[in-house]
Amino acid sequence: MSTRRDFLNLTVAATAVGTLASAASAQAPAAGPGRPIPPAVGDALRLVTFTPDATGAPRLGVVRSDGRVVDLSRAPSPGFDPARMVSLIEAGPVALDAVRRIAAAGDGPKVDTVRLLAPIPTPTRNIYAVGWNYLEHFAEGQAVRGTNMEYPAHPVFFTKGVNTVNGPYDPIPYDPTVSTAIDWEVELAVIIGTAGRNIKEAEAMSHVFGYSVINDTTARDMQIKLHGGQWFKGKSLDGYGPLGPWIVPASDIDPSDLHLITRVNGVVKQDASTQQMYFKVARIIAELSHGLTLVPGDIIATGTPPGIGNARKPPEYLKPGDVMETEIVGLGTLRNVIQAVPA
Amino acid sequence: MSTRRDFLNLTVAATAVGTLASAASAQAPAAGPGRPIPPAVGDALRLVTFTPDATGAPRLGVVRSDGRVVDLSRAPSPGFDPARMVSLIEAGPVALDAVRRIAAAGDGPKVDTVRLLAPIPTPTRNIYAVGWNYLEHFAEGQAVRGTNMEYPAHPVFFTKGVNTVNGPYDPIPYDPTVSTAIDWEVELAVIIGTAGRNIKEAEAMSHVFGYSVINDTTARDMQIKLHGGQWFKGKSLDGYGPLGPWIVPASDIDPSDLHLITRVNGVVKQDASTQQMYFKVARIIAELSHGLTLVPGDIIATGTPPGIGNARKPPEYLKPGDVMETEIVGLGTLRNVIQAVPA
Repeated sequence: MSTRRDFLNLTVAATAVGTLASAASAQAPAAGPGRPIPPAVGDALRLVTFTPDATGAPRLGVVRSDGRVVDLSRAPSPGFDPARMVSLIEAGPVALDAVRRIAAAGDGPKVDTVRLLAPIPTPTRNIYAVGWNYLEHFAEGQAVRGTNMEYPAHPVFFTKGVNTVNGPYDPIPYDPTVSTAIDWEVELAVIIGTAGRNIKEAEAMSHVFGYSVINDTTARDMQIKLHGGQWFKGKSLDGYGPLGPWIVPASDIDPSDLHLITRVNGVVKQDASTQQMYFKVARIIAELSHGLTLVPGDIIATGTPPGIGNARKPPEYLKPGDVMETEIVGLGTLRNVIQAVPA
Repeated sequence: MSTRRDFLNLTVAATAVGTLASAASAQAPAAGPGRPIPPAVGDALRLVTFTPDATGAPRLGVVRSDGRVVDLSRAPSPGFDPARMVSLIEAGPVALDAVRRIAAAGDGPKVDTVRLLAPIPTPTRNIYAVGWNYLEHFAEGQAVRGTNMEYPAHPVFFTKGVNTVNGPYDPIPYDPTVSTAIDWEVELAVIIGTAGRNIKEAEAMSHVFGYSVINDTTARDMQIKLHGGQWFKGKSLDGYGPLGPWIVPASDIDPSDLHLITRVNGVVKQDASTQQMYFKVARIIAELSHGLTLVPGDIIATGTPPGIGNARKPPEYLKPGDVMETEIVGLGTLRNVIQAVPA
């Protein structure tokens, strides 16, 4: 299949470009106390929201390449609220420079001894999301729907509720009275850094703070059949948006050619490159901000590549006990277990 | 037309029920410094977010039936953050009782000398919205679309961005490079009081804090044609969700039979009763909360009745200088001028 061949070529190319790609092969396998040991990915800054133990208050940190988490709340006067990622984002490049210095000079516990939350646990508005942004994914959906719709000339936007945000290694609730058709969607998440409206495509990338990994986990039955064709509800069940494990600033990673993978119980289900995105990050920001002000900390899920469960023959859905891994090579890996909720 | 006849019957009935309806005929016409003098509507508690002048910080208040605004931030230890409506909502019935006492004993400026903001100027997540909740509105859209879709068996949910929230008397920006098909949609807004997930229909009304008026102002060209059938973007331009003028607690008003009106430049465009809602408030809450946790301060726009501009022959859209009035009789009136933005 040409898609796969193109993808393999892209992957080879990716090892030569991007500040993180060269370290991708050093990523550790899933291990540790119910979650993977985060990979060593070179010098890229990895910004996390974490708690030192199960009960502590969330604070910001940096995961260094030696696997230590430096607690930014212990730094004197960092210039932002060290409990809120959005505050750091709003504080701009000077604050980010300060964070790099604090991280280099500091020390802290090993990352597998703390609890990582979503880097922005409570966004100030819903997550913006793009539908059908990989042509092969649009086509696989078309085949299932049996329609012959033209590919939209502009990005398809919807939102995921704030309630969907979930930790990078936390369980995803499964309630069969709500949905029995839970599906995966690996996506590159763009984190907005500076506010703007009517942002020009040529200037859009300067509004990006950084990138993260999101799984736009979806209740397909709800999304498609239940609510008149509007996707919001089927995209917005509690916990159906694991995010993280961290944000890497835009200066430290090139989003144009990143390798996206979903694995379910270790089996690869989605396997593509962000180079296949139909609407690139700059175009998405320009279109989304048309008449709509984006603000620091806004999250944009940029669409998923082919390989979703709903388009498989027969269809495949997640069930309790399944382990869903969502990886963007060189950026990070989410690992979420599907967990039945008590009746 | 039977819809209109039914509506007229409903209006007559409405004058005999509901704690506010009897005072509806006393509502003042539009007047004052660019905005209507809010009506005297009996003893219902009217909770506002306001600034004493153009530059002051927002605070909570009560608009009394004598037209005075009692500033809740001047009350000693009210038991909630007197700058945030969501804090008052979270504080529950005891706080509301305290507010009634403060309002009765206090004094303050006349309401037409202060600036009213949306009662919740910055919701903690997008506004939930219901599409096609009045059968006649679904039918008028069907006629325009030329489709023969079955009426959905469950409410159609989408969201409006936090950026849409606008004051009850503030201008709505008009930018022809973004949209030239701006349309009106009067809707009853439900404000959630207590959190819940999988809320049973029979218990749903106990989760309601109160009600407000919202206009789900829509860029029809964007909503319908531009983004692949997902409504979010066309519903989410900056300022396209005027809300207010206040919240009336659920104890003080019956939402089941309220008279909804949109006027453009004084001409009635929408004219219906909430009794025509296909999915009633309790059902909406039950369906929306299915797998999705609602929290205090969540706003649900419950759908618009027929009479939108897009379904008229020829279609009618708002243009700069137009005055859009959005009224729910006995609850309140929004008055927003369409204002061209500087190029």
